[in-house]
Amino acid sequence: MNLSVRVGKVKTVNRSVATRTGPPAARQATLREHNLALVARAVFEASHPCSRADIAGASGLTRATVSTLVDRLVAAGIVAELPPATPQRAGRPAVPLAPAPRTLVGLGLEVNVDYLGGRVLDLTGAVVAEQVDPDDLHDSDPTEVLARLGRIAHDLLAQVRADGMTVAGARLALPGLVDPRAGRLEVAPNLGWSHLDPVRLLGLGPDVAVEIGNEAKLAALAQASHGVVPDDATGPAPSTYLYVSGDVGIGSAIVVDRRLFHGRHGWTGEVGHVVVDPHGPRCRCGATGCLEQYAGKDALLRGAGLPVDAPTGTLVAALDAGEPDALAAVERAGTALGSALADYVNLVDIGTVLLGGIYPALLPYLRPAAEAELRARVLAAPWTDVVLLPAPVGDHAALTGGAREVLRGVVEDPSAWVADD
Amino acid sequence: MNLSVRVGKVKTVNRSVATRTGPPAARQATLREHNLALVARAVFEASHPCSRADIAGASGLTRATVSTLVDRLVAAGIVAELPPATPQRAGRPAVPLAPAPRTLVGLGLEVNVDYLGGRVLDLTGAVVAEQVDPDDLHDSDPTEVLARLGRIAHDLLAQVRADGMTVAGARLALPGLVDPRAGRLEVAPNLGWSHLDPVRLLGLGPDVAVEIGNEAKLAALAQASHGVVPDDATGPAPSTYLYVSGDVGIGSAIVVDRRLFHGRHGWTGEVGHVVVDPHGPRCRCGATGCLEQYAGKDALLRGAGLPVDAPTGTLVAALDAGEPDALAAVERAGTALGSALADYVNLVDIGTVLLGGIYPALLPYLRPAAEAELRARVLAAPWTDVVLLPAPVGDHAALTGGAREVLRGVVEDPSAWVADD
Repeated sequence: MNLSVRVGKVKTVNRSVATRTGPPAARQATLREHNLALVARAVFEASHPCSRADIAGASGLTRATVSTLVDRLVAAGIVAELPPATPQRAGRPAVPLAPAPRTLVGLGLEVNVDYLGGRVLDLTGAVVAEQVDPDDLHDSDPTEVLARLGRIAHDLLAQVRADGMTVAGARLALPGLVDPRAGRLEVAPNLGWSHLDPVRLLGLGPDVAVEIGNEAKLAALAQASHGVVPDDATGPAPSTYLYVSGDVGIGSAIVVDRRLFHGRHGWTGEVGHVVVDPHGPRCRCGATGCLEQYAGKDALLRGAGLPVDAPTGTLVAALDAGEPDALAAVERAGTALGSALADYVNLVDIGTVLLGGIYPALLPYLRPAAEAELRARVLAAPWTDVVLLPAPVGDHAALTGGAREVLRGVVEDPSAWVADD
Repeated sequence: MNLSVRVGKVKTVNRSVATRTGPPAARQATLREHNLALVARAVFEASHPCSRADIAGASGLTRATVSTLVDRLVAAGIVAELPPATPQRAGRPAVPLAPAPRTLVGLGLEVNVDYLGGRVLDLTGAVVAEQVDPDDLHDSDPTEVLARLGRIAHDLLAQVRADGMTVAGARLALPGLVDPRAGRLEVAPNLGWSHLDPVRLLGLGPDVAVEIGNEAKLAALAQASHGVVPDDATGPAPSTYLYVSGDVGIGSAIVVDRRLFHGRHGWTGEVGHVVVDPHGPRCRCGATGCLEQYAGKDALLRGAGLPVDAPTGTLVAALDAGEPDALAAVERAGTALGSALADYVNLVDIGTVLLGGIYPALLPYLRPAAEAELRARVLAAPWTDVVLLPAPVGDHAALTGGAREVLRGVVEDPSAWVADD
């Protein structure tokens, strides 16, 4: 169990801004909720278990107020009291506080082109239940696939509830344009789905609140060290970055201070359709010379003379063997990726790029051409670094990101889970 | 005088988030400041003068609390009481409240390639003093030019202070990469300036607090209806948009809910260097085929067979006369602009584009090619509009934007200008 956990900054008053209703008047109820969130944040952000006195010192709240709020968070199963360490000085030893394991949990669900499944995380970031079924879901029947995912979700919920856990909610990740507010999938080209209400098709009813999200966006959020430092992370992730995930399509997201930059509809990051060369090949989208036609999986495999259903490992083996077509295809992809990323960095001024999907495996071969293009094209390159890094969470990252988003909601507004005085 | 004023949402608690220190504990001092800002916002956001009762109704604060806070804002010269309208019902008539004219003012300063100057706005949005000197400042001496601007600023300050006004601060707009936190200009290629401390060179000393900003970013903020509806606005501007200003260079900014999207350093929006065609002409920046080489002023005039110092009117006259070279150059620019804007919209999901600089005059000729490219390339085009509009504030917009930014600070945190109880 990982007790070294951190969460994104809690911005309680900020929520009202995000929903565009303007800040509420700070009355007593809001003040109490604000301070409850402040204390929860202190526990979840700490790099190691902290005490009530630590929180009082850091927050400016009185020791008595902190104690009352911590007691309520402990009673609600959000915060756990660990056994006291041996006291260094005379007096009662401080009780270390940490996120509570196996109490409130979040469910991440996903349908993607080659699998469907669910993953349940607790507040410590541990995976407490998971089921992922590999399958080819290109041009699949949404009614059938979502009903199948609904059964997986139902089994996972039953399993964690049987263990006494409470499910705070679920997020369903889909590889397409989604409208989270309307709960509507507009289109998911590689699944062949469009104009659906995916939550209804899951058939979970009022059993659990499900929201939908874009797969790349949720995978992007899994990369930040917010919520929890994932067990499979190779190191602390940055909090502001571009996430770019290569597959048949190329998804991406803009993450600022561990939060998505949403744009108007959440349809940001369509880097796969940034123009690399207007005289280039025709894209699925109808336009010409989009990045996807150079650095998408199909384009890479075709360029390397491999079948389009070959696994990435086959391409890596061809590169390692010095296969000229493979090397040329990946160099061409690297140049195209560097050009599109230079546009991205020039427009949004975020120079840390986390690469996911098939890119981490190809990075040694992609990097030289991509970096040359970034150096030549990023206007601020003399004053700031642009770095390409493999994304720390690779394995079904959108499942982790979705579950974490649910739990972030708990930490940002614990009052909904805490009994009134 | 324009009393129909509006301000951006006040996000008092949010400020601490922007500076990344996390939300403070909501104690009594913060609560009072929060509510003071809430009341100021209500007055500045109203589309027509509102009463104390209106504010109490909208904010959820008690009538007595609102009255006390309004009295303090009136005493501070932030809010003005207008003569009561004839009462509709029996009882004391309500006193209409509005931003106070000619009390607290903000100073916008700017050096650009063809002028330098300053503009002072009051809280109602009225220009109370202004001096703009046209001049060719390509490859100019920064010490001399900034000292000259310092004298203009000094004269403007003396003038408004003689009229009893208080200067809340100043913003200096520069056409280059600036680091506002360090107060440093990294480079302004068209001025030929680099590595400067511009505020020191103004020589104003402790007379007024000056911050620096990028010219396109401040011009972008002038377009929103935040702070005030400018007298020269042709209609209400949207609150979330891309601003793209064409000149020799092409500046731009991402505005979300009337605020800049900053990126890591404030160096967002370098759309002039988005790749239009990698096989295209060499750009000043060293790369090839950047938008600036198709849709920048020099490229347009050269393509039209006109001298590069010709005014925009000459190009418009050539277009109106059906001059084939001019028509071809502008169509080429429109296609390039559409391609780069499609990348921009695909990445940040903001489909309202306000065009400034030389573009509004050329828009009838640029629009068809630009819109064709946007339709072909914006992935979400079937589900959302992408619209090109002339920017509502054209005339030295960065001066207005800079002065407004100063005044936005006053409305967002009026406590600094209000006497303690």
